Amino acid sequence: MVRPLNDGHEFVFHLGGHTPRLTVKPGETFTVFTEDCFSGKLTSVDGKPREVAPYPQVNPLTGPIAVEGVSAGDILAIHLHRLEPARDWGVATISPNFGFLSGTRASPNLQREQDERVWIWRLASDRRTLTTQAANGRTLTAPWRPFHGTLGVAPAHGEVRLGVVPGDFGGNFDIPDLTEGATLYLRANVDGGHVYIGDGHYAQGDGEIAGTAVEGAFNTTLSIDLADGDDAFDWPRLETETHIGVIGCARPLDDAARIAVAGLVRWVAVRTGLDLMDAHQLVSQTCALRIGNVVNPAFTVLCSVPKSVLG
Amino acid sequence: MVRPLNDGHEFVFHLGGHTPRLTVKPGETFTVFTEDCFSGKLTSVDGKPREVAPYPQVNPLTGPIAVEGVSAGDILAIHLHRLEPARDWGVATISPNFGFLSGTRASPNLQREQDERVWIWRLASDRRTLTTQAANGRTLTAPWRPFHGTLGVAPAHGEVRLGVVPGDFGGNFDIPDLTEGATLYLRANVDGGHVYIGDGHYAQGDGEIAGTAVEGAFNTTLSIDLADGDDAFDWPRLETETHIGVIGCARPLDDAARIAVAGLVRWVAVRTGLDLMDAHQLVSQTCALRIGNVVNPAFTVLCSVPKSVLG
Amino acid sequence: MVRPLNDGHEFVFHLGGHTPRLTVKPGETFTVFTEDCFSGKLTSVDGKPREVAPYPQVNPLTGPIAVEGVSAGDILAIHLHRLEPARDWGVATISPNFGFLSGTRASPNLQREQDERVWIWRLASDRRTLTTQAANGRTLTAPWRPFHGTLGVAPAHGEVRLGVVPGDFGGNFDIPDLTEGATLYLRANVDGGHVYIGDGHYAQGDGEIAGTAVEGAFNTTLSIDLADGDDAFDWPRLETETHIGVIGCARPLDDAARIAVAGLVRWVAVRTGLDLMDAHQLVSQTCALRIGNVVNPAFTVLCSVPKSVLG
Amino acid sequence: MVRPLNDGHEFVFHLGGHTPRLTVKPGETFTVFTEDCFSGKLTSVDGKPREVAPYPQVNPLTGPIAVEGVSAGDILAIHLHRLEPARDWGVATISPNFGFLSGTRASPNLQREQDERVWIWRLASDRRTLTTQAANGRTLTAPWRPFHGTLGVAPAHGEVRLGVVPGDFGGNFDIPDLTEGATLYLRANVDGGHVYIGDGHYAQGDGEIAGTAVEGAFNTTLSIDLADGDDAFDWPRLETETHIGVIGCARPLDDAARIAVAGLVRWVAVRTGLDLMDAHQLVSQTCALRIGNVVNPAFTVLCSVPKSVLG
Repeated sequence: MVRPLNDGHEFVFHLGGHTPRLTVKPGETFTVFTEDCFSGKLTSVDGKPREVAPYPQVNPLTGPIAVEGVSAGDILAIHLHRLEPARDWGVATISPNFGFLSGTRASPNLQREQDERVWIWRLASDRRTLTTQAANGRTLTAPWRPFHGTLGVAPAHGEVRLGVVPGDFGGNFDIPDLTEGATLYLRANVDGGHVYIGDGHYAQGDGEIAGTAVEGAFNTTLSIDLADGDDAFDWPRLETETHIGVIGCARPLDDAARIAVAGLVRWVAVRTGLDLMDAHQLVSQTCALRIGNVVNPAFTVLCSVPKSVLG
Repeated sequence: MVRPLNDGHEFVFHLGGHTPRLTVKPGETFTVFTEDCFSGKLTSVDGKPREVAPYPQVNPLTGPIAVEGVSAGDILAIHLHRLEPARDWGVATISPNFGFLSGTRASPNLQREQDERVWIWRLASDRRTLTTQAANGRTLTAPWRPFHGTLGVAPAHGEVRLGVVPGDFGGNFDIPDLTEGATLYLRANVDGGHVYIGDGHYAQGDGEIAGTAVEGAFNTTLSIDLADGDDAFDWPRLETETHIGVIGCARPLDDAARIAVAGLVRWVAVRTGLDLMDAHQLVSQTCALRIGNVVNPAFTVLCSVPKSVLG
Repeated sequence: MVRPLNDGHEFVFHLGGHTPRLTVKPGETFTVFTEDCFSGKLTSVDGKPREVAPYPQVNPLTGPIAVEGVSAGDILAIHLHRLEPARDWGVATISPNFGFLSGTRASPNLQREQDERVWIWRLASDRRTLTTQAANGRTLTAPWRPFHGTLGVAPAHGEVRLGVVPGDFGGNFDIPDLTEGATLYLRANVDGGHVYIGDGHYAQGDGEIAGTAVEGAFNTTLSIDLADGDDAFDWPRLETETHIGVIGCARPLDDAARIAVAGLVRWVAVRTGLDLMDAHQLVSQTCALRIGNVVNPAFTVLCSVPKSVLG
Repeated sequence: MVRPLNDGHEFVFHLGGHTPRLTVKPGETFTVFTEDCFSGKLTSVDGKPREVAPYPQVNPLTGPIAVEGVSAGDILAIHLHRLEPARDWGVATISPNFGFLSGTRASPNLQREQDERVWIWRLASDRRTLTTQAANGRTLTAPWRPFHGTLGVAPAHGEVRLGVVPGDFGGNFDIPDLTEGATLYLRANVDGGHVYIGDGHYAQGDGEIAGTAVEGAFNTTLSIDLADGDDAFDWPRLETETHIGVIGCARPLDDAARIAVAGLVRWVAVRTGLDLMDAHQLVSQTCALRIGNVVNPAFTVLCSVPKSVLG
């Protein structure tokens, strides 16, 4: 069943500060439409990203979705069941004063800014690749790698944040593991939890270095459960069929990694009964450190271990 | 053929400043023994790492190996053919004032230092896993993942660096992709090139967060060729059967990533004929960013793309 | 005239999201009372900082103060005329998991946390020094250096931020130059501007490294004018009798400095008519870089030049 | 007496790896000539910095100077008595791919590089200011602020480093406090100590943000004594008539500051007998954090306190 949320003009650009647009029951499966980060308005290589989606009117979010019976402090388990692309194309840009290989407002320089460019990427009918045209006529190909860049809840302590910001409340992670089959655990900061979702990506390399992924709309099916917490629960956790991980959000990247690694060590200790140093050792010899984004107001890192090493 | 290098007392602790210990022909296949980072002296959980291998007597290197006909400025292609473990155990430690989750001399704090611990990891006879004992009696298991933490050449401009330092001359990367089948490209800074190898790892998670991997000795078979350079060659390049990548070494981690990403974009542009922005876009949508270490004097990141996207 | 704001229970803990508590005319001189960061509740060395002021009930702010006739987008010039200490003592703490020489939630480690300590600093009757008692019976002395740690406006784009956060909207700078005789320039993001002030400091070294200054209440006299902007106006500007400067807020400290320096170079170019490179050269040879804080969610740096070099 | 060192062709570009060029007695006062960082070859605004001083032929150093009776491990106290400018002009540049407001090899971007510029600054006859010409015909003025950018010893553990690198061995600090009347304390790593000095600056703002100061030659009078160490001695210490401080060298700037602050807290504790937390508190309320450079291979920060607060 597609719930009647977001008929085309109902998106929001913040996390926090809203009344719910939809209320679901714990465990209920439902489907929502999510727009791309340009609100679907950037449709050709001649488009002007900063005109069709002037900052901060970027990264429109679907939500907030309230969960019945959830109280502030509860742990939410948000399960992503299916990400169905709503279009057969996505869009990517490179912009002046934005991206990992450019000065930015938060890390400026005095060099001349890079030029703006737009690429329209087409999804192949077999949904295994995306292609676009290079300036020299060649075809560029990227693997289909659908996921949600943004999934979060209303922030703690009454803060209201823009949809481009990641933090302990979730948000704009840009971590490709956040896809079909994944569960994201977040602490609810308000009664009802108030979940936001958006920023669909059809493809993205680690880091989202140019500043955008291949941005695309989705019809996404999910459900939200209550989960047990433990003493080590602090930053967001991500679970897949094979791995468990913790997500850190910070600048510089070192601190994002530190949050993720320390959080996973503490989680592994609690979950396995190992002392902290043995958990540290086990994580150190088996973990993966995946860089999510290096372009948002906070950078993100996922530290994960295979469940097989947890015994 | 095992070349008569390093009979047990011939290791060095620096890159640069030596006369060659061995000279090989370009393309010649040869085998060397490399010690673990504790010089093979840390053999039990009761051992004292800082007594058996007092700083900077850590990370002994085999070399330098000169290559006939190599001139300063040439590009070396160092092929790793086979890493044969020389022992059926490796060793890992956690030390005071060292590691990613501790204050260090380069990033101090005023908290009480963590205690020292040693783990002896045993290699299973099927060489698929390593195991060690936790304090609570449980068995910890890590996948067998053999690679060389350190592979480099004499530094540029007459500098002499400790073997624990990574840089544009290679060195202590701690990147798990540097294993059988990989080729590392480095620019020779002196005639003969003067290659150093060591720091064998039997297992390691990304980042080497505790400060050591499962450290082990190898008999390693390699060969060294001359390779063509191009205008974009600057930082070390790593090639495997499926991927090409560039390695950045810096603090903070952001800059290590920036070096790797920018280097790969420029390499892809030169190799494919794409303009810089199309190369940027292609890398941005397809790259992997792997964190090597976050504990050495410089941190390391490998940015790579599948060869399949290069057309 | 002391305006009837804040009778003891009317403080707020955020910037943004409020209706004005007080409205003043442009240029009107008025006085407000500001509490210390513990709401005046930490009064002895045996006090418990995290019980009397549990996070985020720290850093209470006086405001918001609306200015008649101000529209969003206008530049405010906030003049600090007089900082009169409201008490003859201030308080400082060192807390577990907080401060520049400790792991923190945003940069964690696995070491044992440092213990909590409280110091009560007494203001000498000549108002030149503060003194407190050390554990070994000695008297510690610090120079009287009164200033406001926090001065800001409602953030842009509808964000609501905690009072401990500094940013382009001002906020928790902890820069000692923000004292009697200084003018802070901020862009109004909402009609009326909505100014917040608090976090009085009786003394502080650069960086506020322990995590708190000598925290104290003030009766502060100020006025708020409209100012002319220019094309280079972006981050907050601070002007004193002798200097002009720009404040950057970011992590790591490098980026806070980069924002401040780049902002000042652009301002000097606009103000003097020098080209950007000459302005860069002039600032480079004459600037002071003062570190404000290295403990808040964003770190702060003030880059300033003497007015005498501006010709 | 001017010692017969450096007759114009005897400079070196590394710290470490040399035999002494001069040997002095402890406490002996002597004078040396130091070249500017371009070896005196950049003499007009039309000069080409990278042709006259191609990397790494920059930052020529005078030395090494051995001190009789010094053993490795001893603490040297290097007193700067007099800095006499050897010319009435200095030179400053802005270069492509260098400086704090530009991408660099260690922090690259894809923007177009900035252009090269040279400024010749003239020292006024009253030695109070320097002046140069701006492109628009205006005269730029900077205060005379003579100091040595570089002062160091042969590095520890047999490393050899370029003269542009600062570290625990001293080197290219670019801290303006290193001037007449200052004493720098460094640990000797080799017998004789092997002191290097150079990189004279006629003026510099904090951070040396453009990448060079006003670079000038000096005839400098100094003496070198042995000093007592203490358990807290680790990173370089700087003492003036009024202040004591510790210098940290690292990237990012945060870690340079952390080294300096932690080192000073430990030094103050040892020197005053305060416990570590009281020393932490005292430093926190009274310290100055001065940024030296933000452009070298490591950034530098001096943390200092007035001697008057040490009791």
